[in-house]
Amino acid sequence: MGNRVEIIGLNGIPEVREGDDVGRLIIDAAEAQGVSLEPGDVIVVKQKIVSKAEGRIVKLVDVTPSPLALQIAKDFDKDPRHVEVVLRESRRIVKMDMGLIISETRNGLVCANAGVDASNVGVEEALCLLPEDPDGSAHRIRTTLEGKTGGPIGVIVSDSIGRPWRNGIVDLAIGVSGLESLRSYVGQADDDGYELKVTVVAVADELASAAELVTGKVERSPVAVLKGYAFTGGGGGARDLVMDRDKDLFR
Amino acid sequence: MGNRVEIIGLNGIPEVREGDDVGRLIIDAAEAQGVSLEPGDVIVVKQKIVSKAEGRIVKLVDVTPSPLALQIAKDFDKDPRHVEVVLRESRRIVKMDMGLIISETRNGLVCANAGVDASNVGVEEALCLLPEDPDGSAHRIRTTLEGKTGGPIGVIVSDSIGRPWRNGIVDLAIGVSGLESLRSYVGQADDDGYELKVTVVAVADELASAAELVTGKVERSPVAVLKGYAFTGGGGGARDLVMDRDKDLFR
Repeated sequence: MGNRVEIIGLNGIPEVREGDDVGRLIIDAAEAQGVSLEPGDVIVVKQKIVSKAEGRIVKLVDVTPSPLALQIAKDFDKDPRHVEVVLRESRRIVKMDMGLIISETRNGLVCANAGVDASNVGVEEALCLLPEDPDGSAHRIRTTLEGKTGGPIGVIVSDSIGRPWRNGIVDLAIGVSGLESLRSYVGQADDDGYELKVTVVAVADELASAAELVTGKVERSPVAVLKGYAFTGGGGGARDLVMDRDKDLFR
Repeated sequence: MGNRVEIIGLNGIPEVREGDDVGRLIIDAAEAQGVSLEPGDVIVVKQKIVSKAEGRIVKLVDVTPSPLALQIAKDFDKDPRHVEVVLRESRRIVKMDMGLIISETRNGLVCANAGVDASNVGVEEALCLLPEDPDGSAHRIRTTLEGKTGGPIGVIVSDSIGRPWRNGIVDLAIGVSGLESLRSYVGQADDDGYELKVTVVAVADELASAAELVTGKVERSPVAVLKGYAFTGGGGGARDLVMDRDKDLFR
């Protein structure tokens, strides 16, 4: 009895290269591991393998830093080419201090370095960028997976993100397809009959965080299968998680 | 194979009253539901039942608002007694605008209304406060549960918390006992041999978020049992999740 959700890490995904079909890699890894993909499953995929498959890799030798990038790099003791790529990936700088650049990406995600990452790139002296359209990436993976299961699958592309006020990063949803990112309790009465006025839960973020419990950073397990979570299907995406600027106290 | 974590919602917890032993209620509910509590389990408990058991309920009739509370309530169209309680529960106001009070509690948690809540209180015209020492609350529950299992249990007290820049709330850890809130990958090499310099994952927050997938807001399921997550034991608490002010760009 009681709600049950199972989270299974897939660990047979090979090193991903540009042009790889991530959905197909997931199907193969699940099969090899004896995990049956079924309608109703939620698949959480780390951004890094999605970016690699989409060729979102920039070699440092190909980057010419702008004067601003050179200045910031000098102040923050960073590689100016890395800073340049961060600036190019940013739509807006939210905060720049203490050696950190917090910026908003073109997709509305606010995070350090616009998600540009130098670890686990698979290419020397290179940087990995976020997918250009993570909702679109999730949609493509979902199409492949639903072709296999014949029924609805939720797909989340996740990335590890720092938070104000709290230590440590957590995995959150940066791309979503096939499930509503937000679950609303607006207007439902609680046990006391008290009306919950504005309770909206970011379930896509919670699913991404849950997936991280089985996909470690150094364990080559970039995909998790979540079974038993009754998600609401829908046409939204991770863009639903981006707060409107006029409602945000910390813009 | 692959890592597997199972999350089970306990749904037989009765309405909690002051003086109740939450650990005992969890043991009874698990038994009634046929869920075996075992060493290595992580138990996530919603703050609300912990607060109720600790008598952290304030009746509005007993509150006399200060002049500041009266002024804020007028500007924000709120109950001045509610505002007064929020101010009393706050160590510091981080931001006050658009009808929202974001404050820091005495335990360092930054959240809306210092965690003071009017829903699901179980008493009319009353407010529910956060536990006075959530790490201590988690420790007491753990002691009871380990008395039953005879081996290590991790306990997390969770609360639903909004975030800057992102829509929707997620459950995060506000009290922790028996497990390290942060998992550090500092200095470990990734698959490319690239050294991960500062990767610290807030696993207690991720566990709390994962638990919310089975404990809905209106389903009277305030406790989740997580099985299969290999946590690191330790003497820390949720206080480890509170960022030092001198490292925080958004203080």
